[in-house]
Parts: sequence; structure tokens; C-alpha cells
Amino acid sequence: MQHAPPATVGMPLTEVDTPALLVELDAFEANLRLMQQATANLPVQVRTHAKTHKCPTIALAQIAHGAVGVCCQKVSEAEAMVDGGVEDVLISNEIVGTVKLQRVAALAHRSKLSICVDAPEQVTALAAAMRDAAGAHGASAPLDVLVEIDVGAKRCGVPPGNAAVHLAKLINDTPYLRFAGLQAYQGSAQHIRDLEERRAAIAAAAKLADLTRNQLAAAGIDCPKITGAGTGTFLFEAASKVYNELQPGSYIFMDGDYAANDWAEAGKAGPPRFQHSLFVWTTVMSRTAGVRAVVDAGLKALSIDSGMPTVVDDQGAPHPQALYTRVSDEHGVIELRGAPDYPLGHKLKLVPGHCDPTVNMHDHYIAIRNNRVEAIWPITARGCLR
Amino acid sequence: MQHAPPATVGMPLTEVDTPALLVELDAFEANLRLMQQATANLPVQVRTHAKTHKCPTIALAQIAHGAVGVCCQKVSEAEAMVDGGVEDVLISNEIVGTVKLQRVAALAHRSKLSICVDAPEQVTALAAAMRDAAGAHGASAPLDVLVEIDVGAKRCGVPPGNAAVHLAKLINDTPYLRFAGLQAYQGSAQHIRDLEERRAAIAAAAKLADLTRNQLAAAGIDCPKITGAGTGTFLFEAASKVYNELQPGSYIFMDGDYAANDWAEAGKAGPPRFQHSLFVWTTVMSRTAGVRAVVDAGLKALSIDSGMPTVVDDQGAPHPQALYTRVSDEHGVIELRGAPDYPLGHKLKLVPGHCDPTVNMHDHYIAIRNNRVEAIWPITARGCLR
Repeated sequence: MQHAPPATVGMPLTEVDTPALLVELDAFEANLRLMQQATANLPVQVRTHAKTHKCPTIALAQIAHGAVGVCCQKVSEAEAMVDGGVEDVLISNEIVGTVKLQRVAALAHRSKLSICVDAPEQVTALAAAMRDAAGAHGASAPLDVLVEIDVGAKRCGVPPGNAAVHLAKLINDTPYLRFAGLQAYQGSAQHIRDLEERRAAIAAAAKLADLTRNQLAAAGIDCPKITGAGTGTFLFEAASKVYNELQPGSYIFMDGDYAANDWAEAGKAGPPRFQHSLFVWTTVMSRTAGVRAVVDAGLKALSIDSGMPTVVDDQGAPHPQALYTRVSDEHGVIELRGAPDYPLGHKLKLVPGHCDPTVNMHDHYIAIRNNRVEAIWPITARGCLR
Repeated sequence: MQHAPPATVGMPLTEVDTPALLVELDAFEANLRLMQQATANLPVQVRTHAKTHKCPTIALAQIAHGAVGVCCQKVSEAEAMVDGGVEDVLISNEIVGTVKLQRVAALAHRSKLSICVDAPEQVTALAAAMRDAAGAHGASAPLDVLVEIDVGAKRCGVPPGNAAVHLAKLINDTPYLRFAGLQAYQGSAQHIRDLEERRAAIAAAAKLADLTRNQLAAAGIDCPKITGAGTGTFLFEAASKVYNELQPGSYIFMDGDYAANDWAEAGKAGPPRFQHSLFVWTTVMSRTAGVRAVVDAGLKALSIDSGMPTVVDDQGAPHPQALYTRVSDEHGVIELRGAPDYPLGHKLKLVPGHCDPTVNMHDHYIAIRNNRVEAIWPITARGCLR
């Protein structure tokens, strides 16, 4: 079902129905500019991750601010981006299954597409899908295929070194495919709280990627791209002289989990400070005076996998005395520890603990400037699970 | 965006694309029958909770098995149920905000609707919306309004006793409204693991509801309905001689959290054993031989608020050696502790930790019998947040 958005353009924020997903445009645009500025003079390209926002409007704004294209995790997400006008997509993930690979091959005929593998069976299946698509749609350029290496996250990826060289060689020996580089994302480093520990984790990852690149070179295989990085670490990858493409996603919104990272560097101005631009707008729908306010945003309006949401005041600062401490399917309980005794119907902003899965529960962004609705952006890849 | 379902009717289960939300029909129908049998000779009506399934097809199946109607938590959820053919809906929640109340009043003109309040302001606002709707749509019967009392969950509801009597009197003194009874749901009791502790929590809740009913009677106010209960406790409410309506939801699917409750009664046959009928169908899309299998169902395909999902074998029993231990946005990591070394492309069933927020991430149920797709049911109230 397509749901009507909870607002109309021009409406005052106070009239926006709840729960709603707000994007504060001043902060959002500052984040766009800050990423562009922070990476402008570095030897890297930026390919923002669309899994965070699932919205072509935002992807195109990122591209207008210097991104070369986007990453996606799912085939259907990539289709939604191409349908929305994005021309260059990296599926930064392994795709397994005949139906999905048919869609990958079809999409490669209408966009600049690249994809990751971490097993020989995937190479064979991808080539078969590309061969069938060539039969149906005519010839296309070879598909760019990256080998994912495990640089410490212990999730997907072959071990760095020989296994990656073996797979790259197989790709280059397979019709319809072309080895395009290494996917070397260190996901488990992104939320290491301490800045120096995060830096060290990326230094270790870069060393493994560099080793693999050198072994590829020794085998006579060119490695045009080494891609990875997220909002928590991207300046370290950028400074590594190994990575030449960055995949930040959450910077555009920020969330409670990223805000809890240590961002200061002793004696330095520090890395760029992205602002919270994403909020869940919620209404007090039950109250016990002086004790608690119950709001209408629960587990179906925000994700608590990385912690409870934070109540913020009108300036966007965390409210120290209004704590969202309990969640159920359709309710959130805010304990009032000296906070204002919100009346029934009072609307509040919450910063979600984790932006990506929160976004995936909503059908529209309500874009706000100066407390007024400036735009409504459909989240067209919401629910693109496959 | 409306997504294409991951299957077609008649397709073998093995071909259903992933992630997908499966309903195993034999278990589902056994749960339907078991609830009907368990409550057939008790002095209660069953009003199943549609927040669990968000699907009119399932609501109508529950009504065909004896339910008098459904509960909903949100106005838009209630609209989806009425649109799908359900004629009797209790909004078992407080609704705050002019726009939502206008929709409540409009819905009251085309269905048998009832709703909860826990504050005088809600009564006034509800009456105003009903008055405006009478002007627009003509007169209707008075709206049935229940007073929610807090019987121990410390969430919504006025205190039992005088505060509830005061509110009931206000409802009966207000045009367009009629006091219809008490909402007395003890949500925090549902997952108390120990059966006797659960029983004691409901005994305490029933005592508070009974006290309130007696005070209402002393004030000359009839209390036709006392409603509440969930899958974890419904037989206790049914035996209380206080409750006359039950609101179970999760029984139709079960989940990891409910399965972890203690269900046995010493020396007795025990309460009805509902079966897992809901599964997330997922594919192994990366693997490290003998160590782990990475599947394509993560935080956007299942909710982990009540624990990680459980890998089950073909008979639906938890697999003791394949443990889903880590989750990220689009990935789940299954540790293999002697489990079969699943090949790439192997598909697995997961039992989600919590059914309701998991369902809310999907657009279709794929209904399965004997490993074949028998039906596809749209989840029309998916994302009905408001």
C-alpha cells in the first residue's frame, strides 16, 4: 500500500502528523557541503551509500555535491536508484540467486553498474546471467566486478592476498566480466568509540588491501579501484594512500550511535562535524503528570538496535531530563526527570539510535526549513529487501 | 512504492526469492483452531489484535474462527482493516490530534468502531470530531468509548478506581459519545517467563479492573465490557470472571520471545501450545567454510528488539548448532558450531524474535503448504504508523 504523506508542502511543522520522518534541510545541506569540502583535495572519489537514505532525490543531491555515484546493498535498491535517475551504481555486496542475477544483468544494460563477489560460484553465475541478458538485450560492456576482501569485519569477503588474486584472475578469464578492484569495507570499525582505535583498525585494513594490491600487481592484474570506508572512518581511508573511493552513508543524517563516537583529535581542529538532520517527529498521546510522557513512535517508527532514541530540544540538543527509556510496538515511554511536563498533543523530535533501519520504516521524508515543510521526498527504495 | 511479491502462486518454496516472510499454513490454521477451541466454552469474546499481522485476509480468517472483530493501535491501521472488509474494530489505544480524530469520526460512520481514552481532553476532542462528522456525514450512533486503566504496565491509562469513574461519567455526559467499558491490558505481564508469576500479574490486574467496575456500579454507571489480555496470559483473564473480552495477537504466528515463556503447568495438560507459523526465508550469500554462513536477512528484514532470530531445520525445530549471532543492516551472521556447512544459495528459515515489528518490514505474506506457495497476502497495513 502507498500511504499518504503526513504533511503538505508549506504546512507549519507543528501541523505535521506523527510519527513522521523529518529532514532538517539546513543541517542536511551543511552535511552535503561538509563531505564535499572534507574530500575535495584528497586523492579519493566519494560514492555515497544509498542504503542509508533509500531516496533518489537525496542521491542526486549527493552527486550534485561531487559524489561519482552511489552504493547499494540490494538489487531492488539499485533498480530504485536507476529508476530515479542515478546513472552509476556499485552493488557493494554479494548477490546470490538466479532471479536476482537476471535483474543485475538487465540493470547493467541501462546503467553503469558494478558488483562484488567473494566466491568462484558467484563469478560463474554472474557470467551466465550476463550471457543470457546479452542474448535478450544485445551486447553490453563487460560488467565491472570487484572482489570483496575481509579486512577485519569477519562478515563477507575472501581473505586478503592469494584468495583475492585467484578470484580476480577468474573474473578476468570469464567472458562478460572484468575485474574492477577490491571492496575493502571495515564495517566493524565504524563505531569504535575511541578515535585512535578507529584509526588503527583502518590502518590494519589498508595494510591488508595494499598487500592484496601488490600481489595482484605481481600476478600482472591491474587493480583500478580500492573502495570502502564509512562515516566513522572515511578520513583515515582517504589518508591511507591505498583506498581511492569512499562509501560514506550516515553522514547525511547522523544518528545516536555515530554521535556517541569520539570525534576530537588532541591538538587538532578535528575531523568534520556532521549534524543531526534526521528526526522522528512524535506526539505525546498519554501522560502521567510529572512522571512520564508516552509518545506515538515505537518499534514500528524507529529502530532501537543501536540504542534508544534521544529526545532533543528545539535547538536539536539532547534533553538531559527527558529520557526515552522504554519502547513497545507503537509506544515510547519518556521518563521526565525534571523535564517540562509536556501537555497532551505536544510534539517532540527524537534522534534515532540508528538511521538506516529507521528510514526503512517510513514512506516519505518531510523536508523542513524554518519550521515549515519545504518538500516531501518519497523513500522509493523503502522495503527493497531483495 | 509497491513492491512485487517474491513469489508466484504454485511456485515451490525453494524458488521463493529472499528475504521473504513465510506463513506456514498448516501451523497457521492449527493456531486459528486452537484459539477458537481454547476459548469456546469460556465466558469471553475474542477480539484478535491486528497490529500483529496488519492483514485483512488474516483478520477475516480469525473472524471466521469466532473472533468478534479486531483491535488496532493506529487509525490508519483501523482504516486498512475496514477497507479490507472487517466490520468491527476497537482502537485499543489513545488517539491524539485533530487530523487523526477527524479520521476516527469518519470511520465511525462506516464501521462499528470503539476507541480508548485516558484523559478528559481526549473526550472533548473526540466529541468535537464526532460533532463535525455528524455535520458532514449525518448523524451516527454514539461512539463507544472505553476508559483505559493502568493495571500494572505503567504506560497508558488512568489509575484504577475514582479517576476511571470520573472519566466514564464525563463520557456519558458528553454528546456523541457513550461509555462502553474498560481497557485493562497488562502488557508487561505477557513475557514474564514463569507461568505462576504471569498468573499472579493478571490476578492483580483483574483485581484492579474489578474494583473499578464496582466503583462504576456504585456511581450508577454500567460497564458492559472489560477487555485486555495477550497471547502470554489470555487464559488467566478468561478465568478471572472480570474480563469478558480477550485481545490476543501473536498466537497466530508465535515468535522467539513468546516461545521462551514457560508454558507448562505442573500436573496439568497445560495451556494451548501455539506453533511457529511465521518465518523469514533467507539465503546464504557468503560463507567461510566451517565457520560461518552470512545470510541476506538483517535489520531491514527482521526486528531484533526481543532477541536474535533462531535458525530452524526443515521440521521447524531450533537448530542447536547454527546460531544467528550478529546482525547488520542487510546481513545476518550465522555461526556454525558443527552445523552443516551450508552451500552458497542455500535457503533457511528463521523464527524472528518478535513477530509484530518484523511483519511491519514486509509487503506480502507468502503462504506455504507442503513446500509450495498456496497464496500471497498483501500486508495492507504495513507502515500504517499514524
